[in-house]
Amino acid sequence: MTTFTDYLWFETQKRQEFIRITDEVAAIVKQSGVTDGIVLVSAMHITACVYVNDWESGLMHDFQVWLEKLAPSSLDYRHHQTGEDNADAHLKRTLMGHQVILPITDGTLDLGPWEQVFYAEFDGQRKKRVVVKVMGEP
Amino acid sequence: MTTFTDYLWFETQKRQEFIRITDEVAAIVKQSGVTDGIVLVSAMHITACVYVNDWESGLMHDFQVWLEKLAPSSLDYRHHQTGEDNADAHLKRTLMGHQVILPITDGTLDLGPWEQVFYAEFDGQRKKRVVVKVMGEP
Amino acid sequence: MTTFTDYLWFETQKRQEFIRITDEVAAIVKQSGVTDGIVLVSAMHITACVYVNDWESGLMHDFQVWLEKLAPSSLDYRHHQTGEDNADAHLKRTLMGHQVILPITDGTLDLGPWEQVFYAEFDGQRKKRVVVKVMGEP
Repeated sequence: MTTFTDYLWFETQKRQEFIRITDEVAAIVKQSGVTDGIVLVSAMHITACVYVNDWESGLMHDFQVWLEKLAPSSLDYRHHQTGEDNADAHLKRTLMGHQVILPITDGTLDLGPWEQVFYAEFDGQRKKRVVVKVMGEP
Repeated sequence: MTTFTDYLWFETQKRQEFIRITDEVAAIVKQSGVTDGIVLVSAMHITACVYVNDWESGLMHDFQVWLEKLAPSSLDYRHHQTGEDNADAHLKRTLMGHQVILPITDGTLDLGPWEQVFYAEFDGQRKKRVVVKVMGEP
Repeated sequence: MTTFTDYLWFETQKRQEFIRITDEVAAIVKQSGVTDGIVLVSAMHITACVYVNDWESGLMHDFQVWLEKLAPSSLDYRHHQTGEDNADAHLKRTLMGHQVILPITDGTLDLGPWEQVFYAEFDGQRKKRVVVKVMGEP
């Protein structure tokens, strides 16, 4: 069995940003030499997420509107008594999920026709990391 | 280490449908010969989900009512400007999660007493796939 | 490859309770001898969850208020026709997610600076289990 670990770094311009990372993950899988196995892609910061969905700008806008409705930024959260102002980012990342496992088959990511991997930032403008851990047969 | 990959195909009669797949996943695990490890069960389409919860028809109805409330089908989504009409299905699948990892111990799925695996379809009536990837010790 | 399986048991005093389990998971990883790989931490009961987020009491309170708003306990759920009264617990656990995969690198949990692992109980006051499955290179 082979294991291989790498990290993706992000520092978004805006507080909230959605970034496609399918190609970056695929490159790490290729570098790992694993041809059959899995790759874990997991946000290491608790106001960011990693998810799989459609690469369509309208839907990405819909996600942002929807998350703001279900986890509004404007509420009087108790977390803010610590001086923080990002409780909604913790909730939004929970709705989206913070990690995915992608299967690797025949040396490539075994994804459906529309599956794309995204990093979603809900409290950005500072350096953050995603861990990418590949495991499987060389 | 052994790896083994198979796929489950679905073409639901209704647009939205919940299908128990615990036995199908268990059969693939048995076929793999893996006795200790994990199995990834992951929807390959972005308007479907795989989740673990109760096999009780009342609760499965409650899930549908609840998802429609949190991610209504009737809204004027920007995604629909592309000609699509399924933005709510993308959101519903996000709430439910699109994949699970099940542990395999002593040759069988290591599940709690009420854990059942489901495929949930939110934009069906066409062919869709779930990947099942087993990894572990024979 | 090494695999190692252990279980954490919980019997909460209150119906709803959030318990940090990072140290318990780290201890199992150490005991496994795995230095590079992954650990699956998964609730075996369908009204409980395992999630990664902030260890801050205000935010943990915010999570509870938010979950009650999105999945209220007071509704007339069809699941309750079976005699159960915990449909909301099934929904709350779905929002939070019931499992996480943590990467192991250089013999320790490869977590970001604020990542903590939690068990969240939504229908407690009885014995429940979490499975912890470690896989990787010794």
